[in-house]
Amino acid sequence: MPHIALPEGLPGIVGLLNYRPTTAKPLNDLAEVLLRGDNTLSRGERELIAAHVSKLNQCHFCYTSHATFAALQVDGGWDTVDSVAADPGAAPISPKLRALLAIAGKVQQGGLTVGEADVAAARAEGATDEEIHDTVLIAAAFCMYNRYVDGLATWAPADREDYADAGRMIVELGYTATTPPG
Amino acid sequence: MPHIALPEGLPGIVGLLNYRPTTAKPLNDLAEVLLRGDNTLSRGERELIAAHVSKLNQCHFCYTSHATFAALQVDGGWDTVDSVAADPGAAPISPKLRALLAIAGKVQQGGLTVGEADVAAARAEGATDEEIHDTVLIAAAFCMYNRYVDGLATWAPADREDYADAGRMIVELGYTATTPPG
Repeated sequence: MPHIALPEGLPGIVGLLNYRPTTAKPLNDLAEVLLRGDNTLSRGERELIAAHVSKLNQCHFCYTSHATFAALQVDGGWDTVDSVAADPGAAPISPKLRALLAIAGKVQQGGLTVGEADVAAARAEGATDEEIHDTVLIAAAFCMYNRYVDGLATWAPADREDYADAGRMIVELGYTATTPPG
Repeated sequence: MPHIALPEGLPGIVGLLNYRPTTAKPLNDLAEVLLRGDNTLSRGERELIAAHVSKLNQCHFCYTSHATFAALQVDGGWDTVDSVAADPGAAPISPKLRALLAIAGKVQQGGLTVGEADVAAARAEGATDEEIHDTVLIAAAFCMYNRYVDGLATWAPADREDYADAGRMIVELGYTATTPPG
């Protein structure tokens, strides 16, 4: 049961966004620019970074949501997503994305753990300053979203099939479409 | 030295906000509503929560910044801020704020660590659902801001005196005043 009285039947962050529209707007605006705005990283690649951090933070709602959004937008779909979850080092993704996922994993542990060698490894695979910046901010942002969702003990559907409708909506309309009037 | 090429002479998150205006806007909008928007928690109390989490994350720039902003807005100024940093349990703050700081500390460790007993303790001191919500989201947000600032190895002034001008600006004009044109 959630720690506070939330609108019924709305899972994970959806109930929270509807509970507090004034914070929902910047939270959705941030997700939109980070995960769907113009970028040299594809939307699928950025969703893989979001899912990776959510998995490390053991946030079931955020992991299953962003794994679904990634599966709809990366080559290989769920096979790719599941192989990243099993072992990013062996997954069929670019060496650049693999190096960026490693940086995201360090950010999840704490900002001070990101070392020059981590950044140099990504740069050696062709990562730009903006891609490194966005990877750090996506990873940091999911350390927020994950804590928000679990820190208030929100309810989440168990199975990935239950996230398919939300996935189609986010891929088609984006995050800002879920911002309540406010 | 920062991990990426940032505008020179702008410390901590300020350089990052200027590097990437499209993400700066939602980041500042979120800080503004959480820390300065209409609320039954005072601005000083909310800055104390932000400072507390930043200290736990060992983010020198964010801690010194928000400790300064808190000192300008709480009864007792730096004496109160320093006593919260030394031991929130013994600091001259309300029992309600003490219980909310305990929740914020749990959120810093991870969303799943916040227990029903933590929330019940805050409620017993008079905390409302919205205050519990905002405390969790402020703490979660600073787990983002802290990782953003340190994950890119930004530069930060050492002494609290160097944060006084920024403190007066934030207290007078707010966070959104620092959003670059974008």
